[in-house]
Amino acid sequence: MRLGFIGLGNMGQPMARNLICAGHDLIVYNRTRSRAEEIHVEGASVADSPADAARDVEALITMLADDHAVEEVVLGQSKTKETLSVLEALGHEAIHISMSTISVGLSQRLAEAHAMAGQFYIAAPVFGRPDAAAGARLWIVAAGPHDQIERCRSLFNAMGQGVFVVGNEPSLANTIKIAGNFVVASMIETLGEAFALVRKSGAEASQFLEIINALFKSPVYENYGRIIIEERYEPPGFKLKIGLKDMRLVLQSADTTATPMPLASLIYNHLLSAAAHGQGDTDWAALARIAAENAGLRK
Amino acid sequence: MRLGFIGLGNMGQPMARNLICAGHDLIVYNRTRSRAEEIHVEGASVADSPADAARDVEALITMLADDHAVEEVVLGQSKTKETLSVLEALGHEAIHISMSTISVGLSQRLAEAHAMAGQFYIAAPVFGRPDAAAGARLWIVAAGPHDQIERCRSLFNAMGQGVFVVGNEPSLANTIKIAGNFVVASMIETLGEAFALVRKSGAEASQFLEIINALFKSPVYENYGRIIIEERYEPPGFKLKIGLKDMRLVLQSADTTATPMPLASLIYNHLLSAAAHGQGDTDWAALARIAAENAGLRK
Amino acid sequence: MRLGFIGLGNMGQPMARNLICAGHDLIVYNRTRSRAEEIHVEGASVADSPADAARDVEALITMLADDHAVEEVVLGQSKTKETLSVLEALGHEAIHISMSTISVGLSQRLAEAHAMAGQFYIAAPVFGRPDAAAGARLWIVAAGPHDQIERCRSLFNAMGQGVFVVGNEPSLANTIKIAGNFVVASMIETLGEAFALVRKSGAEASQFLEIINALFKSPVYENYGRIIIEERYEPPGFKLKIGLKDMRLVLQSADTTATPMPLASLIYNHLLSAAAHGQGDTDWAALARIAAENAGLRK
Amino acid sequence: MRLGFIGLGNMGQPMARNLICAGHDLIVYNRTRSRAEEIHVEGASVADSPADAARDVEALITMLADDHAVEEVVLGQSKTKETLSVLEALGHEAIHISMSTISVGLSQRLAEAHAMAGQFYIAAPVFGRPDAAAGARLWIVAAGPHDQIERCRSLFNAMGQGVFVVGNEPSLANTIKIAGNFVVASMIETLGEAFALVRKSGAEASQFLEIINALFKSPVYENYGRIIIEERYEPPGFKLKIGLKDMRLVLQSADTTATPMPLASLIYNHLLSAAAHGQGDTDWAALARIAAENAGLRK
Repeated sequence: MRLGFIGLGNMGQPMARNLICAGHDLIVYNRTRSRAEEIHVEGASVADSPADAARDVEALITMLADDHAVEEVVLGQSKTKETLSVLEALGHEAIHISMSTISVGLSQRLAEAHAMAGQFYIAAPVFGRPDAAAGARLWIVAAGPHDQIERCRSLFNAMGQGVFVVGNEPSLANTIKIAGNFVVASMIETLGEAFALVRKSGAEASQFLEIINALFKSPVYENYGRIIIEERYEPPGFKLKIGLKDMRLVLQSADTTATPMPLASLIYNHLLSAAAHGQGDTDWAALARIAAENAGLRK
Repeated sequence: MRLGFIGLGNMGQPMARNLICAGHDLIVYNRTRSRAEEIHVEGASVADSPADAARDVEALITMLADDHAVEEVVLGQSKTKETLSVLEALGHEAIHISMSTISVGLSQRLAEAHAMAGQFYIAAPVFGRPDAAAGARLWIVAAGPHDQIERCRSLFNAMGQGVFVVGNEPSLANTIKIAGNFVVASMIETLGEAFALVRKSGAEASQFLEIINALFKSPVYENYGRIIIEERYEPPGFKLKIGLKDMRLVLQSADTTATPMPLASLIYNHLLSAAAHGQGDTDWAALARIAAENAGLRK
Repeated sequence: MRLGFIGLGNMGQPMARNLICAGHDLIVYNRTRSRAEEIHVEGASVADSPADAARDVEALITMLADDHAVEEVVLGQSKTKETLSVLEALGHEAIHISMSTISVGLSQRLAEAHAMAGQFYIAAPVFGRPDAAAGARLWIVAAGPHDQIERCRSLFNAMGQGVFVVGNEPSLANTIKIAGNFVVASMIETLGEAFALVRKSGAEASQFLEIINALFKSPVYENYGRIIIEERYEPPGFKLKIGLKDMRLVLQSADTTATPMPLASLIYNHLLSAAAHGQGDTDWAALARIAAENAGLRK
Repeated sequence: MRLGFIGLGNMGQPMARNLICAGHDLIVYNRTRSRAEEIHVEGASVADSPADAARDVEALITMLADDHAVEEVVLGQSKTKETLSVLEALGHEAIHISMSTISVGLSQRLAEAHAMAGQFYIAAPVFGRPDAAAGARLWIVAAGPHDQIERCRSLFNAMGQGVFVVGNEPSLANTIKIAGNFVVASMIETLGEAFALVRKSGAEASQFLEIINALFKSPVYENYGRIIIEERYEPPGFKLKIGLKDMRLVLQSADTTATPMPLASLIYNHLLSAAAHGQGDTDWAALARIAAENAGLRK
């Protein structure tokens, strides 16, 4: 399949690499061109603009940081009008597979814009950190027209260990992605508070974590619990400011759908406080540090 | 080993049964005598009073509902002075193994009282629902004098799948037990809010749960997620009012140790609201219903 | 002074009337024309479009429901291009006095747009309910170029009992307005929870309010306390859905400035729950009912 | 009237002084005897023990720090049995007027104990800081047997500017007192968050306070707002750790009556955090500092 791929960050680069390995023909674009060159040596062409990566491809994958980046690249709203936007460059009946964690609202606008342009649109955000992307072990949550999702299945298989198809309406996948991130963030907040209590009571957090692992048997608890206990917040695997952005997306959807989510608000306020103290570039597991600090615990 | 066992509720009865199966010699007491009789047919003697179950045993196990019940039985504070308390009846160098989920403060008072009486005291609360108790698959968290814990190890093996020894200070086991219950309660609150968002966004909660299961791989999420989606809140596996009591214990320890736990407060307030609406006897997973109701969702 | 006035709702109509009484020459516009006609009989001209109310005036006052309405009327974004927007119709060196409760962000965009068009822009939101508007007892919070505010002072005097000038940057007035609404909303939440506690303890909420009045000596507490005790939520003096909108504005500013406001989040979630239960058109003092309901109190 | 008075702290001393000025015959006790001596020069006798202050008086007033102090002095639970407790020393038909801010639960136990001893008991906690006590401008909230309250009215008049009689059940006065303190604490939290938003938005907190004062017209807002803006947290007028204790009493009553109070929980957690950082002896208005710190604001 001839594919465009825009966004070669910590997640996008290994994903693109796995598509090349699976035999697809890629043209890639990244704002910082050097990251695209790294993929070039593995067989991808390098595009000079987002539009170049979208022209004449069967499917275009975008894996970008946030709503703003996706809007700029796809709808071209912040660009001078000399260059085409992806929307203008993408061919008739081509598919845009949006794999970034973006808002439900933007996903709905993209669905409309592509439909008006005679193109297809699938939302397919992913769960997993960079190592899972490298190992093709991502979990992919896809929504959109059923036959288009089938058309992309080999691509998903090349990047992930499984695909969950959650409906015809693309934005449902975005809802589920951000709700999932909320579940992970809640776990971090929970461990932060529980560890603080355990430590201030004179017990060992690491022993408590062992017990939690015996009960929950979950690699997610094991992994995050370990990061928190060892305070391995740098270098970040997933930046706190991106987690903060995701909690904003959760609260936006909660607002639109009139769903009070007091726990999401609590987490959001803690992340916002961490960001106000210049911790936006640490790992988002540092959310757990807030509970320790509020209890007067020092590292 | 000659053992006393007081408290034959949903948890205590199968635990006592497993001790008998392992060949121990039991004398049991339960306020409602009929439940003791059920164990009698399997080989236990039935005591007429808590003191009778404590006299001439090597170890006494208590598995009662709350602080109040343990205080009454062990310290005898609410009793007329004609009958002896367990503390008075228990022999020199005998061990009291307190397996109930009680407060850190009461555990500390029991440790002192038994030390003054020349007896030993171990706190050994458990994780697991009645089916885990029946299957001897409880997780036991034990703290107390090291050699006394060793003396009891065969008892623990008869009741559980593993023992975590968390220190010499008995109350540490109680801290860890209630902190663990807080982690479970947080997960219920989290799923409640996430399901509400997903449902109000037009997606399927059950499909969302499938994805969470793929990510977390935890039987605890699977089990509770299923209960919540199917609204199987009656008959209760673990009563909401007991969960509320446990969150009180968490907040008491948080207060004593000066550990702010805003998420524990949030959960507590939701459980308190459920109790104020007469839902204290449903399963504590009904905590998740609060988020649904606050979002205007009906069953 | 020749004035345009757009927005003749519960607040705008009495404000416009007071300007006429003070001798100013008004041309008014309202989407529902009948409300403009009511002012016509008192001496105002009626404009056929927002642009007509902006043309050839020295100052244009807008008093509209929310960001959306102000954007549509002033910047014309939702309009077909056949009609001019207010921005296009307003003359060089004319002043736009924006008295609506709008977001800090929109106020900043309006400031830029008017500056580029060679016009002046003042933000001058007000505190006070419709009866205060009728009695010219509003408190006006104004920000913008100092000499322009002086130019408008007679207008402010005709509508209010006092003006607070809070800086040159117009959006500062909007920040202060929404922060003020947050203070009022907090008081409602506080009374809601306190009354619930008092009632469930067997005491009289009205007697408690008397004591609070003795302590605080504040007409705001007296007034809202009375509304809550008598459950006079309909007809609304200030709609809950407008209060919810204002708390959104608070949280937006809190987000932009990285200011965690957990109490604002708490209030927002309660208002959102009320809205999800169809109470958006009751008075926002009904926020206090949430605490009563959560405690299992019935009316 | 022959009166005993126990507890001559910042509040008790000026209250006792006002009773002497009004012509009453006082015998006073204070743990730190020097403070009793200060009153002695104004005409009071000094008692050697709490029991001595209770013997042969018509009414005994207690004004102590917390539940623990009142329990120890009145019920004598922590004392050796050589000395009598107040309960044992107080005569038949004498009145105990408990003016401390204590829990509803203790107030109920005192009511029972005095009734069994053939004595009367009135709860009469007060609102006001030390300067209000000195100026006899306290507000007194009294509950108990109607005729006994009448018997004490001249005493109340000597100490306060008004008495609110809230029922026959003494503990109702305690409920209302702690609910009132909750209302004040909520105002502090509110101002803390609002000031943080205003400051981070580039506006002046002092100008915002002026506007709030114009709206609320409340000396309580004026006074606390000024303290917060000037960060006058030391020396304390009312210690943060006492405020924390009062929020505990609020949450205890909320628990007993099944009244969820999320705002009370929020305030409690902030105060607990301040206490964990060693700020228990600053003024409780320092609660407002938490919001500033969470926003990354430095003094």
